[in-house]
Amino acid sequence: MLAPGVLSSMTAPMLGHLDPAFLAIMDDNQSLLRQVFDTTNRLTVPISGTGSAAMETSVVNVLEAEDEIIVGIAGYFGERLAEMARRCGARVHEVREAAGRTIPPEKIEKALGDHPKAKAVALIHAETSTGACQPLEEVGQLVRRHGSLFIVDAVTSLGGMPINVDANHIDICYSCSQKCLGAPPGLGPITLSERATHAARERSTPVQSWYLDMALLTKYWGSERTYHHTAPVTMNYALNAALHLAVGEGLAQRYERHKRVGELLEQGLEGLGFRLFVDAGHRLPMLTVVECPPRVDAETLRKRLLQEYSIEVAGGLGEQRGKLLRIGLMGYGAQERNVQYLLYALGKLLDRKPA
Amino acid sequence: MLAPGVLSSMTAPMLGHLDPAFLAIMDDNQSLLRQVFDTTNRLTVPISGTGSAAMETSVVNVLEAEDEIIVGIAGYFGERLAEMARRCGARVHEVREAAGRTIPPEKIEKALGDHPKAKAVALIHAETSTGACQPLEEVGQLVRRHGSLFIVDAVTSLGGMPINVDANHIDICYSCSQKCLGAPPGLGPITLSERATHAARERSTPVQSWYLDMALLTKYWGSERTYHHTAPVTMNYALNAALHLAVGEGLAQRYERHKRVGELLEQGLEGLGFRLFVDAGHRLPMLTVVECPPRVDAETLRKRLLQEYSIEVAGGLGEQRGKLLRIGLMGYGAQERNVQYLLYALGKLLDRKPA
Repeated sequence: MLAPGVLSSMTAPMLGHLDPAFLAIMDDNQSLLRQVFDTTNRLTVPISGTGSAAMETSVVNVLEAEDEIIVGIAGYFGERLAEMARRCGARVHEVREAAGRTIPPEKIEKALGDHPKAKAVALIHAETSTGACQPLEEVGQLVRRHGSLFIVDAVTSLGGMPINVDANHIDICYSCSQKCLGAPPGLGPITLSERATHAARERSTPVQSWYLDMALLTKYWGSERTYHHTAPVTMNYALNAALHLAVGEGLAQRYERHKRVGELLEQGLEGLGFRLFVDAGHRLPMLTVVECPPRVDAETLRKRLLQEYSIEVAGGLGEQRGKLLRIGLMGYGAQERNVQYLLYALGKLLDRKPA
Repeated sequence: MLAPGVLSSMTAPMLGHLDPAFLAIMDDNQSLLRQVFDTTNRLTVPISGTGSAAMETSVVNVLEAEDEIIVGIAGYFGERLAEMARRCGARVHEVREAAGRTIPPEKIEKALGDHPKAKAVALIHAETSTGACQPLEEVGQLVRRHGSLFIVDAVTSLGGMPINVDANHIDICYSCSQKCLGAPPGLGPITLSERATHAARERSTPVQSWYLDMALLTKYWGSERTYHHTAPVTMNYALNAALHLAVGEGLAQRYERHKRVGELLEQGLEGLGFRLFVDAGHRLPMLTVVECPPRVDAETLRKRLLQEYSIEVAGGLGEQRGKLLRIGLMGYGAQERNVQYLLYALGKLLDRKPA
């Protein structure tokens, strides 16, 4: 669900992608994204692709063939990042935990000890496939001390909870437009620290992707305005409207709203007999993942929710396919009444009253 | 300018990217794109990025390190394609002509003779930097006879003139959403022949871009619906509305409209003392490129058109910067009254009556 103001923003008259009025929107989007990332990084732009394009941007700009990277994997999106790094020719050192868990800082510390030349460490902040929230602060400190780059996937978390890019010593952080930021899918915000920018500049081979080459994108989004590609104009309108809504609400208030609504959902689901997939203390506010009660088929439930109540919830990915429900309450959708309606619908379908 | 129906399509309720109702729109977009490409290629999808992402997709899926490719270069976008091919590690054999000219088939034939192992030949159908239209038929025949793949950039031409992908023996053809198709920028339609699909399947190394890997995209857009990325939902609404408008108008009628309006513009500009940059017989209908009359500064004229008349025309790219005006009349914008208004404005600014 999109806020009405975001929807209507897309019917504004089309501006040329180099029209001064559109360039002003591009500047404004950069400035607003710095606020939600909580960073002073100059290089903060929306990639003209989805969150996966931003993920690829995060590795492709700093990794060259034979570079080493440590990747924390406890779900589908950690696997994906590792795969993208391998396609850069990098040597990937995987630090694995079971799906639903988070990566302990000691394991990253040990991996850095085993692989002292690792150029980067990558973690998924909000693992969309499991609903687990990865703590960042301690890892950020030890990666910085080691001198490596810290890459963080905030696809599901940005705009719904604090990321604190600068305070957490994150060098590259990226997200998408359609989750907690509340715009439609199609853009992938990313921010690079001076250290990351420097690493990209010092590489000895060209970035293998021309489309995602941050050095070229910098000239387009910077004062030179050197033509690179045609920015998706209407998508940038929508992102602008969504970011103004987020900042206007107040980021602290917005995070609090996601937390309050997420907890309400957790309690309600437990009352209906669902089991929360992630341990307390590591659950995401904007994405709640549950196993169904005994003798309830997750896929049947999903289909009936969509067909009979127009409620869309996601299923498990990869190994969790058919086993889990993943329920997102993000951006404009993070409202109490959506929780109540979902719990009502689930109660009806399971033929029981919420406890 | 967008047609009103395309603008309003984007305010339709957001569907989930795996919602059956959205999957039906994805299928419909594939089917409609086959019509404008004039192909039966099963693998015909909009890439979730701009035309430049589609260009990168065209080379990155078939080229591996040390592969050879022949690239025709007579402007900025030929240079770009060659650069992308080099970033795949390919050996690029350039066939050059001056900006504004087209590549003679004999030169391609000679290049194929000199480099018999060339895996692909790439040409820009409509060179957006110069306004030249590259003939395809003869080159298509000789590339097919040679057994190489024929890659064609139709970023500016698709939807505004015939491409005839199958009849011209084109193996990979790509475009963008915002020019003659008449949707906003943000998607890059592409089509791959069975031969191109086979070449991608037979490669010995993974495609270096995960985001643009057609084998993965095929599973997402095909019947498996294996999750790859989140398709830009509203952009696909807009593309759907725009493609229905195009097919509803009749493609032959649409091409005729672009031709009629383009010729009207050419005549009017010559009457005002502009010199057409491309020789007769090789001019694009949807993009007219001119040199300014003596003592008229192109950049000043562009700025005044935008500020005083809200008319946006493009300037020269690369070496042609500051020397040319590039005037697009594409999709919904290809209307007689837009030509008349532009000629009126230019007449006023140059203080002379159209001849």
